[in-house]
Amino acid sequence: MSNSEEALKYFATYAGMVSVKMVMLGPLTAFYRMRDSAFANEEDFVLTGLKGRRPVFDHPMIERIRRCSLNDLENIVPFVIIGGLFAVYSGSSLSTILWHYRIFVASRFLHSISYLIPLPQPSRALCYFVGIGTNLSMAIRLLMNAWLL
Amino acid sequence: MSNSEEALKYFATYAGMVSVKMVMLGPLTAFYRMRDSAFANEEDFVLTGLKGRRPVFDHPMIERIRRCSLNDLENIVPFVIIGGLFAVYSGSSLSTILWHYRIFVASRFLHSISYLIPLPQPSRALCYFVGIGTNLSMAIRLLMNAWLL
Amino acid sequence: MSNSEEALKYFATYAGMVSVKMVMLGPLTAFYRMRDSAFANEEDFVLTGLKGRRPVFDHPMIERIRRCSLNDLENIVPFVIIGGLFAVYSGSSLSTILWHYRIFVASRFLHSISYLIPLPQPSRALCYFVGIGTNLSMAIRLLMNAWLL
Repeated sequence: MSNSEEALKYFATYAGMVSVKMVMLGPLTAFYRMRDSAFANEEDFVLTGLKGRRPVFDHPMIERIRRCSLNDLENIVPFVIIGGLFAVYSGSSLSTILWHYRIFVASRFLHSISYLIPLPQPSRALCYFVGIGTNLSMAIRLLMNAWLL
Repeated sequence: MSNSEEALKYFATYAGMVSVKMVMLGPLTAFYRMRDSAFANEEDFVLTGLKGRRPVFDHPMIERIRRCSLNDLENIVPFVIIGGLFAVYSGSSLSTILWHYRIFVASRFLHSISYLIPLPQPSRALCYFVGIGTNLSMAIRLLMNAWLL
Repeated sequence: MSNSEEALKYFATYAGMVSVKMVMLGPLTAFYRMRDSAFANEEDFVLTGLKGRRPVFDHPMIERIRRCSLNDLENIVPFVIIGGLFAVYSGSSLSTILWHYRIFVASRFLHSISYLIPLPQPSRALCYFVGIGTNLSMAIRLLMNAWLL
């Protein structure tokens, strides 16, 4: 098995884990919306038997999860794109590839924990910039090794 | 042709369809912004010849499409990541893979229809949880078959 | 090397470039949040030594970057999905594939520049619709060549 194929097998686990983490924020939002009847659409209030209420857009925990989820999208999407291509086209060693994956995935799990509990800053800021740094490090290695316009 | 290669050919159709659906919410938003001169940026009002207006952030239909689009991103992005890897690394039968794709894609088309018309609840909630369930089912099968840290 | 493999090597560069552009909007937001102490979470104000302030959700430049970033997600995510599959399953010539990539990537870089400076409309609208058109053109060619349900 080539280096790339080996790296992609690991990528399946890391990309899978971080995708599941991202997916789970949806049911967590649904839990708070149901518990507090805090829906964003008028037609949703029948779910808790409270017709005619006004939509709620300022529930602190739901808005917090929404920001966490958007931050996930803005960072996990580039990770999956860059990380997948990195496995195939970077020419990096398997160990270099895997440590990028590990650091990124750990930083995003810790980011979500820091955001949702929330932990005192600069916990979340640190996790955030470690994730950004890992993505940029992979992108630079990828683009330096495989630059075709 | 191997099982994975066959599954990936189907994946191309399903991932393509669901991506087109996601893309089309953009022009739909643009339609409402133009029709009602409901722009989010001051410089946009020249498009309808109405300089000096204040940005609009509470147009009901535009905000509805925005929530629909964000929900798409939060669910279709994991689908593409998990679903693509699922085809290659899950060791599942072609039939298992394809039914996951079909159920997910159908649930997301119905979710958008339920959101935009809107249909009475729990239509949209049902579509939403079917999509989440399909993603989680694929993720569990993937991670159980290919767990490498 | 087959046509698909060649196209995917180019895709690595284009998808990498556009992902880096998307990633960089994060630190740009962080810059404005720190400079103007405009944080969205109460716990963040310790970062600039200003405890007890109220969260800020209406900073014009931060909200502008947020809209730019969301527009990126709604268009770059479909590009990566459709564009990657397009390289493998469209049966298009290498030249056709590459010009789709080039036009899309150029349109999104110009879109961000138009959004953030901002340039007078219809600059941004034009870039936006060129990007949408490129995605739809790839999707139609892909789905017409590889339609399997």
